[in-house]
Amino acid sequence: MAAALLDRRDLDFLLFDWLQIESLLARPRYADHTRDTVAAVLDLSERLAAGAFLPALKPSDQNEPTLTADGVTVAPEVVAAVRQYAEAGLLAGPFDQTVEGLQLPQLLHYASIAHFMAASLATAAYPMLSIANARLLVAFGSAAQVEAFALPQIRGQALGTMCLSEPQAGSSLADIRTLAVPDGEDELGYRHRLTGNKMWISAGDHDITDDIVHLVLAKTPGADGKPLPGIGGISLFVVPKRLPDGQANDIAVAGLNHKMGYRGTSNCLLNFGEGKHLPSGAAGAIGWRIGGVGEGLSQMFHMMNEARTGVGLGAAAAGCRGHLLSVEYARGRVQGRIANADGTSRPAVIIEHPDVRRMLLLQKAYAEGALALTLYSARLLDEQLSGDDAAAARASRLLDLLTPVVKTWPSEYGLAANDLAIQIHGGYGYTRDYDVEQLYRDNRLNPIHEGTTGIQALDLLGRKLLRDRGAALAELRAAVSATADAAGADPSLVAHAKRLDAAWKRVGEVVDTLLEADAAHVLDDATPFLWAFGHAVVAWLWLDMARLCADDTSFHRGKRAAARCFFEYELPKVDAWLDQVAARSDLLASTAPELFHS
Amino acid sequence: MAAALLDRRDLDFLLFDWLQIESLLARPRYADHTRDTVAAVLDLSERLAAGAFLPALKPSDQNEPTLTADGVTVAPEVVAAVRQYAEAGLLAGPFDQTVEGLQLPQLLHYASIAHFMAASLATAAYPMLSIANARLLVAFGSAAQVEAFALPQIRGQALGTMCLSEPQAGSSLADIRTLAVPDGEDELGYRHRLTGNKMWISAGDHDITDDIVHLVLAKTPGADGKPLPGIGGISLFVVPKRLPDGQANDIAVAGLNHKMGYRGTSNCLLNFGEGKHLPSGAAGAIGWRIGGVGEGLSQMFHMMNEARTGVGLGAAAAGCRGHLLSVEYARGRVQGRIANADGTSRPAVIIEHPDVRRMLLLQKAYAEGALALTLYSARLLDEQLSGDDAAAARASRLLDLLTPVVKTWPSEYGLAANDLAIQIHGGYGYTRDYDVEQLYRDNRLNPIHEGTTGIQALDLLGRKLLRDRGAALAELRAAVSATADAAGADPSLVAHAKRLDAAWKRVGEVVDTLLEADAAHVLDDATPFLWAFGHAVVAWLWLDMARLCADDTSFHRGKRAAARCFFEYELPKVDAWLDQVAARSDLLASTAPELFHS
Repeated sequence: MAAALLDRRDLDFLLFDWLQIESLLARPRYADHTRDTVAAVLDLSERLAAGAFLPALKPSDQNEPTLTADGVTVAPEVVAAVRQYAEAGLLAGPFDQTVEGLQLPQLLHYASIAHFMAASLATAAYPMLSIANARLLVAFGSAAQVEAFALPQIRGQALGTMCLSEPQAGSSLADIRTLAVPDGEDELGYRHRLTGNKMWISAGDHDITDDIVHLVLAKTPGADGKPLPGIGGISLFVVPKRLPDGQANDIAVAGLNHKMGYRGTSNCLLNFGEGKHLPSGAAGAIGWRIGGVGEGLSQMFHMMNEARTGVGLGAAAAGCRGHLLSVEYARGRVQGRIANADGTSRPAVIIEHPDVRRMLLLQKAYAEGALALTLYSARLLDEQLSGDDAAAARASRLLDLLTPVVKTWPSEYGLAANDLAIQIHGGYGYTRDYDVEQLYRDNRLNPIHEGTTGIQALDLLGRKLLRDRGAALAELRAAVSATADAAGADPSLVAHAKRLDAAWKRVGEVVDTLLEADAAHVLDDATPFLWAFGHAVVAWLWLDMARLCADDTSFHRGKRAAARCFFEYELPKVDAWLDQVAARSDLLASTAPELFHS
Repeated sequence: MAAALLDRRDLDFLLFDWLQIESLLARPRYADHTRDTVAAVLDLSERLAAGAFLPALKPSDQNEPTLTADGVTVAPEVVAAVRQYAEAGLLAGPFDQTVEGLQLPQLLHYASIAHFMAASLATAAYPMLSIANARLLVAFGSAAQVEAFALPQIRGQALGTMCLSEPQAGSSLADIRTLAVPDGEDELGYRHRLTGNKMWISAGDHDITDDIVHLVLAKTPGADGKPLPGIGGISLFVVPKRLPDGQANDIAVAGLNHKMGYRGTSNCLLNFGEGKHLPSGAAGAIGWRIGGVGEGLSQMFHMMNEARTGVGLGAAAAGCRGHLLSVEYARGRVQGRIANADGTSRPAVIIEHPDVRRMLLLQKAYAEGALALTLYSARLLDEQLSGDDAAAARASRLLDLLTPVVKTWPSEYGLAANDLAIQIHGGYGYTRDYDVEQLYRDNRLNPIHEGTTGIQALDLLGRKLLRDRGAALAELRAAVSATADAAGADPSLVAHAKRLDAAWKRVGEVVDTLLEADAAHVLDDATPFLWAFGHAVVAWLWLDMARLCADDTSFHRGKRAAARCFFEYELPKVDAWLDQVAARSDLLASTAPELFHS
């Protein structure tokens, strides 16, 4: 039997036992949904992901998008998969009924889309991006803009993108050059003509839907006609491939990027306003401003934050699938021998070898830990909609603090899990005949896009911790302490609880040290800090899950073993990383460029 | 200017300053060579690797070997590169003059071939394997076998392989099934007819040379006609593609493996004796036994040990090239801003960002540390040939102990270096336009082939340390202490020296604990032990190099910065790993297969 895409028992545990989705469903907002809705959505997701997305996995890799004069063509299996996703109504899942959505809890939406990501990250990127795009429009667009550009996506008639980077501006968005010149006003709002080059545009063109809705960061001209300087000069525009009157907009695909993995997601260099098409007789891509001048980046963060947790979710899902494939392989592959009690030996299946078990347990700790983290973040999204102002504010603070971790930790450790999956498969895992090979290549993108690990680390330490003087951290530590107190009452977990408390005490001490320190080198080791913080967060979640796994079923015992694995093998690294951060070493600052040869 | 393949200043430092190649050259064995020989060989290697192997890098990946009825065809650039290597006489480099070799020091041979590996791992695999094959023949073959099968390889007229694994027997060679039935005796020795399937045969077929010399592990039949059981039943056979009389041997290429990387090295499933050809009128591949019945595995270890250090060297070389490419990119890529003293800011090249410097320094520490380790192992090979029995025996003991580390540490950390190289390149590094993408895919094989990391860990802890009750370890610790004592006299290194001593003291304590312990769980955490031991070894080498880098040149300062980086960021991990090993946790043993879902 083929391995499942995700472990349904684990999802049921996470949703019902741990994150208590039934208490969500009791809220008036979800009056239309019941426990049966959850089962039905997960059943549908399993079936559709296995039936349409998994068959697209290899073709999406082997048959890369191609560019012709008519635009980009993607593998037919990818086209079919995304269209089936749309036809099943799943693009409407997380939206409010007021915009024709199903108004599912975010938690359920995340659990659903995780199946599609587990089956094919590259194929799932299309709906993931489109949902994030439509959400931004619903949050910040005018009613007319929602009607024209969000509803078609929610209905599955169009797909969306986010256009941020430019060839010279990747992480550094203040330096974008795309210019948006005012061009009057109409029922869709302030109209502009855009000119510029956007790089790394996932789903930037394809033949899945006829229309594509681009959300584009661009700068408006100042009084001198030049782009407004800095981040404050950035506004956000909705720029459709096809204008409402049917004309082709002035957008050209200048090239495709050819990547290590994620190959099924077309990745485009888009030229806006180069004159390929002349809408209303003139060059310049027509777009409508969303919100006010200069609000672009803060609005885009709405989509970017969702894309970041989405990246984490996909990385976790790929990690989980690699783990299930590894378990299946390790149970069937005979290799080496195991000693019998009488001194003879017998052939072993490799799951019997301690080192293989170590790699399976670590994978489980990484992958299921990452899935727990991302679903926890979805639960915070739901809490923001709870109607309870204090609870919503608390959830917002926690989510804001955790977003760089939710993006990065699953990206780094989902990849690490896939690395172990290859290692368990041995030489076979290195061949393209086995899916783990592709999972690893696909997952390698996740620590890069939507903000590299280094960028997330600066966000966490600089913005989320030091700038708010540790206020959000206090909120998080209270939640951690609640877990540790509860687990401390269980004799089998009390040692873990103490280690967790100690780790968080140390995190707090280091943050306090950095808050007191002068400016020098405080942020130099932001990345090791992120690793330490991420491990401390995931240890917390593992303990919180372990305390609910008290019975003698293999599922509960497996969860406890994975928790123990994380505490034994991983948590001890936290101190080593924090020592480095606390030392505020001048090593990096003092290593001048000329000390490196090239 | 394009980045160099390897840093020549570093090689000169390693060869002349650190490993004192001139003291080698003073020996009678190397009377034909001088300091100028070293320069000439390195010059030639640089030129040929850049001129012929680097141009084969992308074609070897994009134009994979194909199989037709006539056999395997590889990319013409790969054919041309390997032929130029042969024509330059480099296949003869490490061999004695008695077998038409150049009798170069092994150290120089390693430094030479590292250039070709840095340029294209897949292309360099052909000469690397052939040299190891011919060396085994010279060591164990009869004069007639050397003449017939080794000399053509040394002359560059044939290439060689090693045929160990079978579809059902990868790491577990005791379970091979290939049968070698006696078929008389002739001037080449005991002739056998071989039947069986060999898997993962690198360079198993190709159109670079007309003949291919396979070294094949197979079992002879016992009195009952069945293969002799266990490892003691394994013998070694030389099985040429083309028999000395010109007939085609009965070897068929049953298929090619399609890998993540290393694609230019044809990787074959070879069927011996299936009757595709009928040499002398009968099915069965004709081979000649090397040495005695049952000596196969111990002889093959001669080649396997060389292949293992060769894997480490290649992984180190790819790590070094990725580092140089990263430095070049980080110096040119403008992104983000750096604050000026007056509160304004200016655009930065990314090498100015601390996190990028961290990734560059870690890469340097990993890659140059790995290169140092592998060249040190070559220096031990030279010491084995020194003519001084005591020194040779000491070198053999050290090399035997270190081989699993020399294989594994560069494989794991060369890959980690390439991972950082991609991260520095951002989205660009994830595209196939940049070489770092391919370096990472190629290098991912190295922790798998020639014995996985888990196998190496069992070899290190079980065989090399516990079975000899720590005798070789004492030899190594003496060498470490000598370094620590010397470095301790330098005020800028005394802290490192103390930390190194402490780390090795702890390694010794843990080994002692395991020696005293009963059998339970002693080897369960062999892999974390290997990580700890490897880090302790590389820290020793870094300190040993740093003590020679006392001047104010950017090269010496760069070496010291990398050493400091390794001591600050990496050495602290050793304690965490050793704690796990020393605890002899029952976690892995107690996690039964049913606790994993699939």
